[in-house]
Amino acid sequence: MWSQIQLTPESVVPLYKQLFERIRDRILMGELTDGTRIPATRELAGLIGLNRTTVSAAYELLEREGLIRGHVGRGSFVDHPARASAFAADPYPPPITIQTQFPARTGEIISFATSCPAAEMFPIEEFRRTIAEVTASDDLARILQLGSPLGYEPLREYLRSRLFESGDLSAADDILITSGCQQAQDLLIRTLIQPGDLALLEDPVYPGLREALHRAGARLAGIPVTSAGLDLAEVSRILQRERAKLIFVTPTFQNPTGATLPQAARAELIRLAAARGVAIVENDIYSTLRYEGEPIPSIKQMAPGAEIVQLGSFSKVAFPGLRVGWIAAPRRMIEACAAGKQWMDLHSDHLSQAVLLRFAETGRLDAHRRQVVAAGAGKLSAALSACDDHLPRGSSFTRPSGGMSLWVRLPEPLDSSALLRQAEEQGVGYLPGRYFAVGRPEQGSLRLSFAGLDAGRIREGIAILGGLFDRELRRERQGGYAHQATAMV
Amino acid sequence: MWSQIQLTPESVVPLYKQLFERIRDRILMGELTDGTRIPATRELAGLIGLNRTTVSAAYELLEREGLIRGHVGRGSFVDHPARASAFAADPYPPPITIQTQFPARTGEIISFATSCPAAEMFPIEEFRRTIAEVTASDDLARILQLGSPLGYEPLREYLRSRLFESGDLSAADDILITSGCQQAQDLLIRTLIQPGDLALLEDPVYPGLREALHRAGARLAGIPVTSAGLDLAEVSRILQRERAKLIFVTPTFQNPTGATLPQAARAELIRLAAARGVAIVENDIYSTLRYEGEPIPSIKQMAPGAEIVQLGSFSKVAFPGLRVGWIAAPRRMIEACAAGKQWMDLHSDHLSQAVLLRFAETGRLDAHRRQVVAAGAGKLSAALSACDDHLPRGSSFTRPSGGMSLWVRLPEPLDSSALLRQAEEQGVGYLPGRYFAVGRPEQGSLRLSFAGLDAGRIREGIAILGGLFDRELRRERQGGYAHQATAMV
Repeated sequence: MWSQIQLTPESVVPLYKQLFERIRDRILMGELTDGTRIPATRELAGLIGLNRTTVSAAYELLEREGLIRGHVGRGSFVDHPARASAFAADPYPPPITIQTQFPARTGEIISFATSCPAAEMFPIEEFRRTIAEVTASDDLARILQLGSPLGYEPLREYLRSRLFESGDLSAADDILITSGCQQAQDLLIRTLIQPGDLALLEDPVYPGLREALHRAGARLAGIPVTSAGLDLAEVSRILQRERAKLIFVTPTFQNPTGATLPQAARAELIRLAAARGVAIVENDIYSTLRYEGEPIPSIKQMAPGAEIVQLGSFSKVAFPGLRVGWIAAPRRMIEACAAGKQWMDLHSDHLSQAVLLRFAETGRLDAHRRQVVAAGAGKLSAALSACDDHLPRGSSFTRPSGGMSLWVRLPEPLDSSALLRQAEEQGVGYLPGRYFAVGRPEQGSLRLSFAGLDAGRIREGIAILGGLFDRELRRERQGGYAHQATAMV
Repeated sequence: MWSQIQLTPESVVPLYKQLFERIRDRILMGELTDGTRIPATRELAGLIGLNRTTVSAAYELLEREGLIRGHVGRGSFVDHPARASAFAADPYPPPITIQTQFPARTGEIISFATSCPAAEMFPIEEFRRTIAEVTASDDLARILQLGSPLGYEPLREYLRSRLFESGDLSAADDILITSGCQQAQDLLIRTLIQPGDLALLEDPVYPGLREALHRAGARLAGIPVTSAGLDLAEVSRILQRERAKLIFVTPTFQNPTGATLPQAARAELIRLAAARGVAIVENDIYSTLRYEGEPIPSIKQMAPGAEIVQLGSFSKVAFPGLRVGWIAAPRRMIEACAAGKQWMDLHSDHLSQAVLLRFAETGRLDAHRRQVVAAGAGKLSAALSACDDHLPRGSSFTRPSGGMSLWVRLPEPLDSSALLRQAEEQGVGYLPGRYFAVGRPEQGSLRLSFAGLDAGRIREGIAILGGLFDRELRRERQGGYAHQATAMV
C-alpha cells in the first residue's frame, strides 16, 4: 500500500502534512493495524518520490499524535492499541469522539459541536404536568408491560392521524416507533441493505448514517450538497451506471450543511428514483424548525403511494434524552422492519412514548415548538451576522432558513481539524468538516451548530473563531513558502 | 434441493407429514421463495423414492397452510408473499410470530407463550411515587437532554457499586446501559462477531439470541441443554476442533428450559473457555427469581478478571415496558460497545433509566422482588404438580427452582407445533420447542412460561393441554399404521 500513497504537489498544503494525513487516516480507519511496521524514511521517500526530510517531518507528526512509535534497532511501528484488544472486533473507529457528544462535559466552552436543543428552553413544568397525567392514567399497566415491536399503539394512532392530515402518510403506509431517528436509520439499513448494496447519501452527511451504512457493508456513493441542495446530475449519472438500493436524503435543513432542496429538485429526485426503482429515505426531523420563509412540501407528501420512507423524531424539538422517533413507510416495509426491531431491542421504551404522546396531544408540543422557533430565528440571525463580521475573507457559509446548523468553508490552506485544538484552548468547540465526509473530505470546512446556544454566546464564539482563523491564515500564508520549499528539495 | 430431502421411514411420524414439514420449513426459512415452482407429485415421488399419494398428502397440507398454490395447467408454486416485497431484504422470517409476543392480545386465552411478569403484580403506587420523585429532582434537565452512549451516569454508578459488592464486577470492568437485554445481546454480537465467526450457544435457546447471531453471519454451534445443565463434553469437543469467538450461556434458570448449570460445571466451563481463549457471555437476567434452594455464584463472580461478559436487566422483575438492561464487562469491551451503541441509537432512554434507578435505590425494587419471588414459588409449584397430574405418560419436563419457564418433552409422535392450533382453539397458548431450536429441533417439546399467570390459570391451562395431548396421542397411535401403510405402498 505504501507505493499507492498519492500526494498533490500543486496544493498549498505542504507535502509533509499531506503525507502525515494519508498515513494517519489509514491508521484510524484500521487499514494499518497496531504493530504494523512503517518503512524507513529512506525507503518510503524512494517509493513515492519524496525528499527524505519530508517523510521525516510526516513521521514526526505521526509520533507526536501518538500513532507510531520507534524501537531502537528495529524500526517504527503503528502504535494504536485501542484496536488491538481481543475484544476490538470493530475495524472502524467512531469518527466523532464520544466526548463531543456530551453537552454536559462541554459546559465550560462555547460548543458549536452538538446538534441538540438548548436545555434552558426545556418546558420543565409542562413536562412535569404531562408525566403526572400519564402516570395517573388507566393505561399505566399497559405502558409498564412488554409490547409490540411496532410501538405503543396510542402513539402510533396519533402519528398516523397527524401524518395522514399533513399528507405524509397514505392509506398504504404504516408507522413503526423507534428509539430515536438514529435507530430508525440503523433498522432500515439492517432490514434493507445487504453487503455490497449501493446506497446514495449526501456528502457531507450526518456521520451516524454513514457509519450505520458502513457497518452493514453498503457501498456508499456521496452526492455533493451545494447551497442549492443536492447535485442531481450526479444522482442521475450514478443511477444510470449502477443499480442502487436506497437514496438517503434530508431535504430540509440538512445536517450538517443546513441546505434545503428546492421543490423542483425534490420532484426531479422523485422522478429519478422512481425511474430506476430505487426507494428514497427522507429524513424529515428538522423541517418543523423553520425560522423564515414558506414551508416546502416533503418528498413523501409530493409522491403519495411511492416507495418513500420518511423518518421523524421528537428529539429536535422536545427532549432528546427521551429516545422516540418513527418510520413512516409502505406497510410491507414496516412489517419487515418490525421483524428486525424485535431482534434489536423487542420494542422501544413505552414510558417515553406515552409521555411524548401526551405532550403532543395536549398541544404542549406545538406551543413549545413555537417558542423554539421564535428563539431559533434569533440564534440563526446571530450566527449569520457573526459569520459575516468575523470569518476571514475568502470564507463562505450556508444561509439556512431553519434547523440547527450551518456549514462554513474556510479559505485554503486552513485545516479545520488541525485548528480545533487551538479553538478549544480558546474556549470554543465545533466539528471539523472531515467528520461528515463520505468521499470528499473538505479540509477547510466545519459545522457550526447554533441551536443549543443563546445569541450572545453564538456571537462571542464566532468572533473567537474568526480571530483564530484570521491569524492562522496569515501565519500559514507567510510560512507556506518555507514548507513548500522543503518539500521540493 | 428436492432430491436432498431426507425422511425417516422408521419414525412413527407419517412420511407425508415429515415431507410437509421439510418443505414448509424451507419456505419459512426463505430457501424456497415466493413463486418458486414445486415439482409435480409424480416428479417428486420419483426423486425421493416415495409413493405419489404421500407427496399429494404433503402438498395438500402445504396448500391448506397457504404456503403453496396450484395454477391450472402451469403447476404449483410457493405462495408466501410476505417475503416478496421489494423491501423484503431479510431472508430470514421471524420464527416467533409477533402476535405471540403481545400479552394484550392473548388476554382471552391462558397463554404460556410469553416469558414476562404478571401485570397484576406491578407495584403501580410505588411506581407513581418513584416517577414523581424523579420529575421533582434537580437532575431533570440532564435526564431530558442528549447523553452518553454508556448510559445515564447515576444509574451506572449505582449498578457499579451493587455489582462490585456482589462480586460480579471487578476493578477492570465497567458497565454500559442498553435498551433491555435483547439489545445487549445484539450490541455485543455486532461489536464482536464477524461473519463466519463461530459462536456456541445453548440448544434450545432464546430465539432472540439465535436470530441476532444469525443476522450477524455467525456460525452457530448449539450445545444440548440437559436437566443437568450444558453438555460440557460437547463444548470441549467443539473448542478442540475449532476456534470459537464467544460462548453464550444462561447458567441460572435458562430460557426456555429453566435448567441451571451446577457450580462445578460452571467452573469447568470457565476452565474450558480460558484454555481456548474464548470469551463467555453470561446472561444473568433470571437468577434473582429463585424460588427455592441456595443461590449459586454467577460465572462472573467465579472468575473475576477473566474475559467474561455479564448481561443484566430490570425487565424480569420490574417493568418490561421500560427497556433498561446492561452489559458488565472488561473496560475495553465496554468502550468497543459504546462506539457501536452510538450508531445504533445514540444512547438508551434516560427517563426510564432514571426511574428504575430511583425504584432500585429506594429499596422498592428489592421489596417488589420479594413479592414476585413469593408468588413465583406458588406458580412454579402449581405448574409442576399440574404437569405431574395431567401430562400423558411418557412425557418429561424440567423441574427448575426459579425463573419463568419449564420445558416439556411429549412422547412421540406428538408434534407440539401441529397441536398448537387445537390448543389455542381450546383456549391455551404455548410456544412449540422448534422455535427455540438451534440445530436439534425437538418435535415433541414445548415451553410453558408460567410467571405471567396465577396458580389457578396455570393448573387449568395445563389440565386442558394434558387432555388434548392424551387424546391426540391415542389418535396418532391408532391411525399411525394406516399412514405408514400408505407411505410404504
